[in-house]
Amino acid sequence: MSDTAAMSVPRPCDLLVRADAAVTQDRDRRVLTDAAVAVKDGLVLEVGGQAELEAGYEPEQRLDLSGKLLLPGLVNGHTHLPMTLLRGYADDLPLMDWLEKHIWPVEFQLTDDLLDTGARLGCAELIRTGCTAFLNGYFHEHVTGQAVIDCGMRGVLGEGFFGFPSPLFPTAEDCWNTIRNLETRFENHPRLRTAVTPHAAFTVPPEELAASFALAEELDIPWQIHLAESPTETAVCLDKYGKRPVALLQEHGLLTERTTLHHCVDVTDEEIALMAETGVNVVHNPASNFKLASGMSPVQKMLEAGVTVGLGTDGASSNNQLNMFREMGLAALMGKVRAEDASAVNAQAALDMATLGSAKCLGWPELGRIEKGCPADMIALDLGFPNLMPVFNHVSHAVYAATGMEVCMTMVAGEVLYLYGEFRTMDVISLKTKAREAAKWVCNAAEK
Amino acid sequence: MSDTAAMSVPRPCDLLVRADAAVTQDRDRRVLTDAAVAVKDGLVLEVGGQAELEAGYEPEQRLDLSGKLLLPGLVNGHTHLPMTLLRGYADDLPLMDWLEKHIWPVEFQLTDDLLDTGARLGCAELIRTGCTAFLNGYFHEHVTGQAVIDCGMRGVLGEGFFGFPSPLFPTAEDCWNTIRNLETRFENHPRLRTAVTPHAAFTVPPEELAASFALAEELDIPWQIHLAESPTETAVCLDKYGKRPVALLQEHGLLTERTTLHHCVDVTDEEIALMAETGVNVVHNPASNFKLASGMSPVQKMLEAGVTVGLGTDGASSNNQLNMFREMGLAALMGKVRAEDASAVNAQAALDMATLGSAKCLGWPELGRIEKGCPADMIALDLGFPNLMPVFNHVSHAVYAATGMEVCMTMVAGEVLYLYGEFRTMDVISLKTKAREAAKWVCNAAEK
Ligand SMILES: [Zn+2]
Ligand SMILES: [Zn+2]
Repeated sequence: MSDTAAMSVPRPCDLLVRADAAVTQDRDRRVLTDAAVAVKDGLVLEVGGQAELEAGYEPEQRLDLSGKLLLPGLVNGHTHLPMTLLRGYADDLPLMDWLEKHIWPVEFQLTDDLLDTGARLGCAELIRTGCTAFLNGYFHEHVTGQAVIDCGMRGVLGEGFFGFPSPLFPTAEDCWNTIRNLETRFENHPRLRTAVTPHAAFTVPPEELAASFALAEELDIPWQIHLAESPTETAVCLDKYGKRPVALLQEHGLLTERTTLHHCVDVTDEEIALMAETGVNVVHNPASNFKLASGMSPVQKMLEAGVTVGLGTDGASSNNQLNMFREMGLAALMGKVRAEDASAVNAQAALDMATLGSAKCLGWPELGRIEKGCPADMIALDLGFPNLMPVFNHVSHAVYAATGMEVCMTMVAGEVLYLYGEFRTMDVISLKTKAREAAKWVCNAAEK
Repeated sequence: MSDTAAMSVPRPCDLLVRADAAVTQDRDRRVLTDAAVAVKDGLVLEVGGQAELEAGYEPEQRLDLSGKLLLPGLVNGHTHLPMTLLRGYADDLPLMDWLEKHIWPVEFQLTDDLLDTGARLGCAELIRTGCTAFLNGYFHEHVTGQAVIDCGMRGVLGEGFFGFPSPLFPTAEDCWNTIRNLETRFENHPRLRTAVTPHAAFTVPPEELAASFALAEELDIPWQIHLAESPTETAVCLDKYGKRPVALLQEHGLLTERTTLHHCVDVTDEEIALMAETGVNVVHNPASNFKLASGMSPVQKMLEAGVTVGLGTDGASSNNQLNMFREMGLAALMGKVRAEDASAVNAQAALDMATLGSAKCLGWPELGRIEKGCPADMIALDLGFPNLMPVFNHVSHAVYAATGMEVCMTMVAGEVLYLYGEFRTMDVISLKTKAREAAKWVCNAAEK
């Protein structure tokens, strides 16, 4: 207990969390031992030592995480939650085959009820594995929005669209109206935001991309797109427009600080320099890029160039997990082989991607850290699992040794969503029944 | 209940296991639903449907794994268990730096007590994540042998050695005697075997490799070596002997069916053809190859050539997990990007590596399957975790969706070693204390 703390009158707070250690992800990347966090009104009031905070605060509630490691909630920069229904439905196939022959035919038949089951199943897995916020791109995004509200997470909703007319949107204006409605519907909800998310540069014509970007500017929300996912995509863009994907966006003024590019596997050194110069953000999705054999993104080069890189799982049908711990490990592992350098994409860089990087990509930069004034989105890893023994370096353990299932506590805005095996906002047993029924439906739909 | 079953007199068995489904890994790769396995004297008596086996057997004990998926125990083809003590101690470093400046200086000071803690910690993680047998290469292998006996797993012990004289063995004969003693000491133990395991072709001179191979032939046990792990190793071999690693072994008659090569990252198409022709086995270690930036092994080409490929984690200090589920996922993911083909190293191929492939590499080919007459080494995955919902394909889930922490039961020779969070043969809480003390010792040793 410090003298100043002892002399001052304890201040009230809602919750005092104590843990063996805390990886803060603050500016100095401090890792505190015997750590404590005071929470009030869903925000972090103070982070420090246990003795200091015990003396300084009078909490209404306590959460004693002895033997545990506290981390900021991980942020999933790119996913498609309702596709969780299709986990393991079609594997070991090339991207276009997988999409055209297996995924799209089933997706076009999905009802809102099924989307709801998929979204909730996805939220359950995210919460279980320590993710507290995500960017979702899919159709009928109000469905995922309601799931996010109910389960207590944070979400950025991106209504996906292809070129017009499409089965969902006869005209561009129909799509823009849906996005505006989504924005209005959830604008007062503190845990929901929206983004404009055209599918890709080879499925949405440049003029419509530009129009969608204008909408993002008007609403002052992020603009996000799948880009440069594979050499095949580059070939299609070259064939259609005579330009590579990054150049195509540049030509239409779409490389800006509002822009986040998802994947960026097939990008050249010159393109990386341009990305850094224009301030675009990138979300890296290593598992999906591996599984679809899209290639290995030159992440180390992007980091060295100063590009903000976030991390995402993509959908469960091309991963097949929604587990940001696994994704951090893959980012670090892939980064080394891609750069032919074992020191590339080190543990801290991978953790930065999954926290601060993704948070910036979501347009929600105050997430991904445990820091005074920031949202109290935190998770804890149980250090009692054999695979987390012994401890030399907490950041190394989070990235290389943890599977994500050691998460024993997930908190968003000061509310505990998961604690020691118990989901507080979800009924996982009834989800299992619904998922089983949905799987039967998928098998039938696939035969149509 | 079938008529024949109803009419026959039920036979006694020690244990009847029931599960929602069983991935058998038998010759036809059958996946049974409503599965049951009858066990007697540590062996599988019969595998089939629940109704059929309930009618056919009168078990002494029952294990009802409702909502679970039964799989053969996974087999770790390559690890160094005592190095578990060094998990996370030195990351993000190139292979030679990592070995020479960080790992070896500490390793040379390890006492048997410390090796014991490392070995037991490794066993705990293997049991927790569904591994039932492994090949270990390290020093003072009697220590790991005792840990294996106590924890109930199966192990193949490989006393590691460099060229002579070495700090451990003044002469080759000293080393051969140690291996003979190890063989004699454990020869009557049903769960322990030995192998001859020279470190590598660039650290043991060819004549000594040949002498060690003669010993393996004399004792009729496997001969195993780290080989072609990286382009750096190839360069060293070329410089020292004027030959690439595979050619060097061939010159000395060391490519045989008794031989298992660990890693094989830097191998040419011609070398793969030679490996197939000579019948050598390979153990693939994707996590370690990624983490040390050694490169990506051309596993798909080896499989197509007919080479037996097993799977290993390598040591926890270059992984940093000893988790065969994670390793299966990495094998499938790396395989696709390496082959530039999303259908390469599919889920079944990855599972085959971690079961039948590794078992053959260990010289214990009856492991890795749930089949009549084979050892009753089985594990179960709890399908109640959100990341395993819904289920379309059990093999896909084991390889792509499971983290390994969904393992809720691990059995070796019909004995349950782990069930629903409880280790039956190990005290993990006291291991945590010992691991913490060992970590302090490592930090001190590193400063010497
Ligand atoms: Zn995507
Ligand atoms: Zn090794």
